[in-house]
Amino acid sequence: MAKTNAGRFFEDYALGQVLTHAVPRTVSGGERALYHMLYPARHALYSSDAFAQASGLSASPLDDLAAFHIVFGKTVPDVSLNAVANLGYGEGRFLKPVYPGDTLRSVSEVIGLKQNSNGKSGVVYVRTKGLNQRDETVLEYVRWVMVRKANPDAPAPETVIPDLAKTVPAADLVIPEGLDFTGYDFDLAGELHRWGDYEVGEIIDHVDGVTIEEAEHMQATRLWQNTAKVHFDATFRPDGQRLIYGGHVISMARTLSFNGLANAQMVVGLNAGAHANPCFSGDTVKCWSEVLDKAETAAPGVGAIRLRLVATKDGSVGELKGENGKYLPGVLLDLDYWALMPL
Amino acid sequence: MAKTNAGRFFEDYALGQVLTHAVPRTVSGGERALYHMLYPARHALYSSDAFAQASGLSASPLDDLAAFHIVFGKTVPDVSLNAVANLGYGEGRFLKPVYPGDTLRSVSEVIGLKQNSNGKSGVVYVRTKGLNQRDETVLEYVRWVMVRKANPDAPAPETVIPDLAKTVPAADLVIPEGLDFTGYDFDLAGELHRWGDYEVGEIIDHVDGVTIEEAEHMQATRLWQNTAKVHFDATFRPDGQRLIYGGHVISMARTLSFNGLANAQMVVGLNAGAHANPCFSGDTVKCWSEVLDKAETAAPGVGAIRLRLVATKDGSVGELKGENGKYLPGVLLDLDYWALMPL
Amino acid sequence: MAKTNAGRFFEDYALGQVLTHAVPRTVSGGERALYHMLYPARHALYSSDAFAQASGLSASPLDDLAAFHIVFGKTVPDVSLNAVANLGYGEGRFLKPVYPGDTLRSVSEVIGLKQNSNGKSGVVYVRTKGLNQRDETVLEYVRWVMVRKANPDAPAPETVIPDLAKTVPAADLVIPEGLDFTGYDFDLAGELHRWGDYEVGEIIDHVDGVTIEEAEHMQATRLWQNTAKVHFDATFRPDGQRLIYGGHVISMARTLSFNGLANAQMVVGLNAGAHANPCFSGDTVKCWSEVLDKAETAAPGVGAIRLRLVATKDGSVGELKGENGKYLPGVLLDLDYWALMPL
Repeated sequence: MAKTNAGRFFEDYALGQVLTHAVPRTVSGGERALYHMLYPARHALYSSDAFAQASGLSASPLDDLAAFHIVFGKTVPDVSLNAVANLGYGEGRFLKPVYPGDTLRSVSEVIGLKQNSNGKSGVVYVRTKGLNQRDETVLEYVRWVMVRKANPDAPAPETVIPDLAKTVPAADLVIPEGLDFTGYDFDLAGELHRWGDYEVGEIIDHVDGVTIEEAEHMQATRLWQNTAKVHFDATFRPDGQRLIYGGHVISMARTLSFNGLANAQMVVGLNAGAHANPCFSGDTVKCWSEVLDKAETAAPGVGAIRLRLVATKDGSVGELKGENGKYLPGVLLDLDYWALMPL
Repeated sequence: MAKTNAGRFFEDYALGQVLTHAVPRTVSGGERALYHMLYPARHALYSSDAFAQASGLSASPLDDLAAFHIVFGKTVPDVSLNAVANLGYGEGRFLKPVYPGDTLRSVSEVIGLKQNSNGKSGVVYVRTKGLNQRDETVLEYVRWVMVRKANPDAPAPETVIPDLAKTVPAADLVIPEGLDFTGYDFDLAGELHRWGDYEVGEIIDHVDGVTIEEAEHMQATRLWQNTAKVHFDATFRPDGQRLIYGGHVISMARTLSFNGLANAQMVVGLNAGAHANPCFSGDTVKCWSEVLDKAETAAPGVGAIRLRLVATKDGSVGELKGENGKYLPGVLLDLDYWALMPL
Repeated sequence: MAKTNAGRFFEDYALGQVLTHAVPRTVSGGERALYHMLYPARHALYSSDAFAQASGLSASPLDDLAAFHIVFGKTVPDVSLNAVANLGYGEGRFLKPVYPGDTLRSVSEVIGLKQNSNGKSGVVYVRTKGLNQRDETVLEYVRWVMVRKANPDAPAPETVIPDLAKTVPAADLVIPEGLDFTGYDFDLAGELHRWGDYEVGEIIDHVDGVTIEEAEHMQATRLWQNTAKVHFDATFRPDGQRLIYGGHVISMARTLSFNGLANAQMVVGLNAGAHANPCFSGDTVKCWSEVLDKAETAAPGVGAIRLRLVATKDGSVGELKGENGKYLPGVLLDLDYWALMPL
């Protein structure tokens, strides 16, 4: 009996299947410090206990995207070890802040399947939940990936494509209990722009850039216990390059967007996401944002802002797709998310 | 009076000499997070407080090898600063888990000396103990190194070669107090293979690989306060290469072996170890294991498994030595250890 | 309205202006572990709670220079984003140890201004304070930088050059409350040399060296939330090189100086500092120290020692400036500081 995990192939998935992902993880101040070392993270709520407490939280939580990466990393051995491509994200919501001392684990359910017409692969849709040690769901999202078949003759499953919301409705966003921005300190946060200062359609060039190194993207990916060979083993791809984990680009872009969006403090919704082109060591990641929508919330002083975050490797701003409808070659990431901002 | 430490030379050691190594170290969640960033560490007992508590421990301990590196690092200025070669390890036992908040220090005793026939160097055998803040020994091992003489005319000491056990007898392994695997959650641990599923002689190809970067091996080595110049200073060796700390290869291989040995949770014995060939930045480390022995323990649900762990830089599996009895050039590490596994 | 921070230009500063720097930061054991990973840090007081407690402190504090970098990093967006050169430091004092759990923020006051004769730039002097969550000043220092004008026609301010002490008088050094070195354990600290063993004028070659990698200096700089583009973005400078944050060289040299100055435990004063030449990835940093002064303190068993710490990239020792009075090309850093040492 082979002892190593060969991963699941397309024919190994069935609708309604529940995947209990392995290796629960307890986070500490160490993970928080590392997030600040790996990314130019400066959002005050994730940096300072005092700032978080003045905003009604018990302490500074782990960055929402760090929690996302931990939950996501656990799914890799069961979902994407034999993936040809990570096709998209949707219906993501952050439901509870994660604090040092919390232990996270992940569970996924297969909610859609569609074999490709070539018969060699298919698309698997999973809804993943991250749970803490009290079995509370801290975040959830849908992800769909293209997965190879091991046996091309395996019969195609019934095609089921889940009916996913294009965006998470503002009314469905969950605001952390107690969050209150009425006493928000804009000086300490780093910028004076409040929710009312942003207009739908506005584009923000975040100006700063980071050139990526092999050691850094491997460390970031490993920290989340994501073990896909393609990120670590230079002998795995014929070109000898290590593909950078898409989540590394997400966190790099989100933290770079501080410069212009310092007050977009908490990520509460993930509407859509596409890794437009692969990223490799040596690329210089820059980013820009577009304000897509705005909404009020029930929490005191707290507004929601829907943002498109675009990471590039060519420093372009405002350009996304070519005439053929495809992403331009300089675009790395196109992410659509909701954040919370002081009114 | 020169203020810098020139290190000890062969003639500076005497049988029975006790070396009190410097720089005690308090560990926190930070060291645990870093171990997960530097290595693809996924053994659940070291990742999750909840998993460790369900196994009868008070919390998730620091990885045993991280504790080993901390204890080992302290010995470098006194034992191996002038070492020509690190010849071997033996009689290693892990006696107490190390938890965040513990402070470690190291003490060694010289237990053997043998001048080489060339008169220019000799072999020094030390038994090293790592102690916590309660003066409890958390781990111990024997190590022997070849050390240069500063003065070739210094008289040779009486030759004393310690009588070392080839392996730590299973009966001498110390099982952490309270450890109980009867309620072990194989799904959360990541693999279903239990102690009974492994057969002596079985060989496991761990499949995954990591290409090593200068920044990463230096950071790992520095974290353990191991300051041997050869790991950090590219001007030190004539070829401009930085030699990678052998312990970095040990931890890389042990964590890569998760894939196939996810349930080999705790390292409790170190029978033997040899760094077969040097490792440099750019090498891709892969590994394979061979089951050498199995034994029962007195702890509920807990079996012991003796494993040979071989790290390679050429991806070979199952091959160790050539016809001349020497390690093949692609082999980096040959480690013989005991781990604890659920029955 | 542009949302990104363009930084302040010379004409934006006014004498007496108070700058409240953004992004407070709570530190944990994570930051301490990272300091040990990024630098060869071995001073026992910063490594071991037990050692610190035996010296009269409540626990092992965060390394003084780590606290300095955190405070300094916050000033970058307001002080040096448009800096042409970082000209000097002075009147630095460390007033309170920083412990895990503390939250740091920074405030600066403009204490001097002098437009350059070319009318295109000027020198800004700021006194910066780092404060903890109890509004206690943990450290303070003066720094002066040359900053560009955005509008060359902006009128020159009245020239005010602050009258700075050439060195912090020993009597003004603040010894941490309770510090007591009468029971100092020299074996655990790593060297036997005490305060009385050092002579003014003595030069110490610290022997060890570290070759710098891009990933490491970026991580260190990012950890302190210093976001100056020039350190991270390889497309920013015409030569494609990333300039290494001067503070990275300071910490590298200070920690390398352990070998010969293991008992220079706490940094309490920063008299002067100059970044003599830029440092880039691939440089091998070595260092030497000169004993400049010695003083007694009121604390039991505690002496103060004033040291010149010189970092080089060519391994030279004892040489600082050429006949023209300029720093030699191999010199990276010339730092003048006070440390505390057991008598």
